[in-house]
Amino acid sequence: MNSEQIMDELDLIARYFAPLAADGAFSLQDDAACYSCPPDKQLIVTHDALTENVHFLPTTEPADIAAKLFAVNLSDLAAKAAEPAACLLTFAPHKTVSPDWVAAFATETGRQLKQWDIALLGGDTIAMPQGSFFALTLWGLVAPNTMVRRAGAQMGDDVYVSGTIGKGWLGLRDAKQDIKQDVKENVKQNIKQNAPQNIKTKKTIYQCHYERPEPRLALGLALRPYIHAATDISDGLLADLTHICTASALGMTIQLEAIPFADKALELRDFLITGGDDYELIFTAPPQNRASIEACATKTDSAISRIGQVIAGKEVVFLDAQGQQIKQQGQSPKYKGWQHFDN
Amino acid sequence: MNSEQIMDELDLIARYFAPLAADGAFSLQDDAACYSCPPDKQLIVTHDALTENVHFLPTTEPADIAAKLFAVNLSDLAAKAAEPAACLLTFAPHKTVSPDWVAAFATETGRQLKQWDIALLGGDTIAMPQGSFFALTLWGLVAPNTMVRRAGAQMGDDVYVSGTIGKGWLGLRDAKQDIKQDVKENVKQNIKQNAPQNIKTKKTIYQCHYERPEPRLALGLALRPYIHAATDISDGLLADLTHICTASALGMTIQLEAIPFADKALELRDFLITGGDDYELIFTAPPQNRASIEACATKTDSAISRIGQVIAGKEVVFLDAQGQQIKQQGQSPKYKGWQHFDN
Repeated sequence: MNSEQIMDELDLIARYFAPLAADGAFSLQDDAACYSCPPDKQLIVTHDALTENVHFLPTTEPADIAAKLFAVNLSDLAAKAAEPAACLLTFAPHKTVSPDWVAAFATETGRQLKQWDIALLGGDTIAMPQGSFFALTLWGLVAPNTMVRRAGAQMGDDVYVSGTIGKGWLGLRDAKQDIKQDVKENVKQNIKQNAPQNIKTKKTIYQCHYERPEPRLALGLALRPYIHAATDISDGLLADLTHICTASALGMTIQLEAIPFADKALELRDFLITGGDDYELIFTAPPQNRASIEACATKTDSAISRIGQVIAGKEVVFLDAQGQQIKQQGQSPKYKGWQHFDN
Repeated sequence: MNSEQIMDELDLIARYFAPLAADGAFSLQDDAACYSCPPDKQLIVTHDALTENVHFLPTTEPADIAAKLFAVNLSDLAAKAAEPAACLLTFAPHKTVSPDWVAAFATETGRQLKQWDIALLGGDTIAMPQGSFFALTLWGLVAPNTMVRRAGAQMGDDVYVSGTIGKGWLGLRDAKQDIKQDVKENVKQNIKQNAPQNIKTKKTIYQCHYERPEPRLALGLALRPYIHAATDISDGLLADLTHICTASALGMTIQLEAIPFADKALELRDFLITGGDDYELIFTAPPQNRASIEACATKTDSAISRIGQVIAGKEVVFLDAQGQQIKQQGQSPKYKGWQHFDN
């Protein structure tokens, strides 16, 4: 209830963030920002927060938090095929945060704004007594009525996924040095031995992904003319496939063997499809667009996999290599990924 | 890092918030919302968060938190003379929150959306391991280039303030049962005895204001044609007057006796002008508009006071009844209100 002790930090914040602000933000010296929507465009608006001990660890580097904050919000725009335009940043670190920490966060914020051509229009800063958090309201632009919806899937559509599945789950365990207890010892060893490493950081690619996921923006924008429905994988493959089914009032068959698992250990499949934080795209498209979609993937240097079909029904059904329906191992009501409304 | 334990609550949240969502939010079942800006309007965008132990107490009622969250953001739109249009809500209560708590928060949210005709387009929900917070990204509309700026003050303008000053500070002390130690005992008694009470709740009007400030939206919208600059008082009268001076590269003289202090005790003045959370409007206007401005106040049933003039310079100078410059009692570098960038 008293912010006197953190005055210097807040002066510092103004010093670091104000230079990043765009026209319309009035150097972060007004009560609100002004934004002119270009004619014949609609705004696609998303908001995701990252909170300590939920979305990042107390030890996570400030630059990684800033990068991930942009990535998770850009991933939503990628899934809706919207060009990034502008944002508001909420910066709520612990009240004892150091100037160096703020500087590192601000530097990465500036890098992200530049990389994605996003105008910083304002935000809010708070010195937190406990439990820091960081949030972004990000909007992008689309031509009227061209937003790619979750609700657009059509019967007979192919179901695709970009990249690999489960690296968010693997990366979190890796970052925490904590592979789930119910995974057998030999599997743990296997993950650690087989995980490719980043040459520079010596971290596994999973941890690199967990800390700095890469939003599939180029792929999402390229796909727009060819696809019916899309979402990004923030809640886990199964949960996010189900979101498309629910929104489209249809079902899906998914070939288990076609899923591009990040780790091939069979014992992990349950965790990898429900773990969340993959930030890959799921999308559906009519079979006649297969060549165009392959071309989009090539053009944007993105891996994609065709993993199933949209059918009548209302849920996701997994099939084995023989086309027989199989139940998810260890299936329980809990294994539905992370549920939140994630606009 | 594990949200399995809070699944039921999140189902509950979807149940309570989804019915409040507007067109373009897709029942909160998509990755992002879609918003069409009306032609020939600009968006005025603000974002303020309320966090536990900074902006509200652990004991604060959920309906009061929801009401205040809207009030503080609407107050920014009021100061910019923007008509409220749409919002995104971040709902991040403690993970053990009860269904009744969520229901009470959602009910008040619905009431606020209806009262101010605001479309709920989406947001984010998080179950917090510690330290809850709630945030709103709110935008309003103005005709192009009609946003009232902090930077618009002109030499010779009158300086006005709405309502009374210091009730945010008094209300917080009242809510916490904690009048600052450096206030003399007789003054404490005086505050407690003289503070008008709300007949229904038996709370002082200060506490009522602290819990549920009323944004000056009608006044702000009515004033737009007649004023040069405005801001709302969130950081304290002195700090927010200074914001207008800094943004406008001008100074101000303020008649101390003309300030409508919420409590008349002289010993409190220092606290009342620096305490923040008043959510009144400060605005400047040319003297020839005095009659129009009085008419706006009457029409919107708002109290206003003319408290000073815009002059050359760069700071706020207080004058006594004889026009002599006086120094603020107990002035110190700390007494500058709450500093944050508050877009």
